[in-house]
Amino acid sequence: MEKVAYLGPKATFCDLAATKLFDNSERVAYGTIPECIDAAGKNEVDFAVVPLENALEGSVNITMDYLIHEVRVPIVAEFSSPIRQHLMMHPDNAGRIGEIERIYSHSHAIAQCHKYLHGELKGVRCENTTSTAFAAQYVSKHPEEVTAAIANEMAAREYGLTIVKPDIHDYAHNHTRFVVLSHKPIGERLDGLVRKGEKTTVMVMLPADHAGALHQVLSAFSWRKLNLSKIESRPLKTGLGNYFFIIDIDQLMDDILLPGAIAEMEALGCKVNVMGSYYSY
Amino acid sequence: MEKVAYLGPKATFCDLAATKLFDNSERVAYGTIPECIDAAGKNEVDFAVVPLENALEGSVNITMDYLIHEVRVPIVAEFSSPIRQHLMMHPDNAGRIGEIERIYSHSHAIAQCHKYLHGELKGVRCENTTSTAFAAQYVSKHPEEVTAAIANEMAAREYGLTIVKPDIHDYAHNHTRFVVLSHKPIGERLDGLVRKGEKTTVMVMLPADHAGALHQVLSAFSWRKLNLSKIESRPLKTGLGNYFFIIDIDQLMDDILLPGAIAEMEALGCKVNVMGSYYSY
Repeated sequence: MEKVAYLGPKATFCDLAATKLFDNSERVAYGTIPECIDAAGKNEVDFAVVPLENALEGSVNITMDYLIHEVRVPIVAEFSSPIRQHLMMHPDNAGRIGEIERIYSHSHAIAQCHKYLHGELKGVRCENTTSTAFAAQYVSKHPEEVTAAIANEMAAREYGLTIVKPDIHDYAHNHTRFVVLSHKPIGERLDGLVRKGEKTTVMVMLPADHAGALHQVLSAFSWRKLNLSKIESRPLKTGLGNYFFIIDIDQLMDDILLPGAIAEMEALGCKVNVMGSYYSY
Repeated sequence: MEKVAYLGPKATFCDLAATKLFDNSERVAYGTIPECIDAAGKNEVDFAVVPLENALEGSVNITMDYLIHEVRVPIVAEFSSPIRQHLMMHPDNAGRIGEIERIYSHSHAIAQCHKYLHGELKGVRCENTTSTAFAAQYVSKHPEEVTAAIANEMAAREYGLTIVKPDIHDYAHNHTRFVVLSHKPIGERLDGLVRKGEKTTVMVMLPADHAGALHQVLSAFSWRKLNLSKIESRPLKTGLGNYFFIIDIDQLMDDILLPGAIAEMEALGCKVNVMGSYYSY
């Protein structure tokens, strides 16, 4: 059976994504994003699923930085998952929503439900936990206190909690982007899922930090009518003021346009690395 | 005395930044980034210090998203602080580094010290906490266990721990960028610190997601020789595929060049908001 690494513990949003992508697999929880990436880099697992953007339990920066500076494992797929936060309680206390003394969750989840908490549960103390899954586990173990957790539906199932108020997140369109990393091609492994698009991610290091350098680089894409869905500057680890760019192009690697754009950027003195060319699900 | 909000608990990296910026002030810890921003927005505090980039205990995205969508409080200063992570133990156990059974810290701090932990303390179990400060507090309260925390020097002082191995972070050039938010002008309040540069941050919403729109926008800066130190695309909360850009320009708002660039972008159909014009310390 295929082994899939994810950012644990059990029932995190990353676990939820890994389960949707690889339903029939052995999923292995790791404590940090670098450990997940290392596992895929050393082929200890077949695939690693890690958060890349707008993540709850991990930082965007750590994922991309680790892929660029430490272990180069290709991105073979991406999965964009809506973030749905639910308020859940121990079944013994589920009728006592008005008496909640304390709410447990990850600080980012609490921040994502700021408006709801501020409006409906004003004054109730919020306590940070290391993950939304841990918050659910804590509430399940302490029926003697009237507490609630903010977590996903997988955590409610895993820890036997009752969802007393679903979808308490402030924005309906909040998504987390996860990427699948592997040295193996993904082939038709995810063909059961709906494809939403295609992407190529490149890392571009500019020759020097001068006005207009980025503008020149973008020209290479622009005149070829290559659409960029994302661009982000990130500092290099070599000191302040040195930047590289991560650019997502809305198409798979082809024979002419993308290699042409890359050759043009290289001719300008840029260093270009292709991080992956893959489908979005 | 001035009141300054920061992302708590006590002795976090955000507290360290707030202390360096506003030494003679009353510092108030808040549990989430939105609560810090709200406090400044409602003038409950004079200034709020929140992480913006490469943050340990908070997400970049939450800070910028909250400023853009919820509460508009101007950025009046920025402070870039090197991240130094130290291994610290209870003074009773400080000689027993070889016997450490468990290491406590925030998952991002553990990730930032990945190489050191992997090389020098291989196999020692790492346990996630909600902040580096909480890890230090835990270790200080449990001298009966041979444990260590990864945290900053302020946490070592605050909780009476001994630094047994300083600077165990993998990259010497890792910085966190904090911003000071306030409805009041900062004036000469930070003049005791060294100014490293000046910045104007603008939020630009493109008229439509078409190839080359961003390229056109960057032309407005490029031909005026305005240098961009950062550019980042972020999804709007109105659905997938809608983006806005956060752009940092390397100068303060002036009378001609920046207003000219903004007028040109608006003529292209963009919506432009100035988030702040400020000094970097």
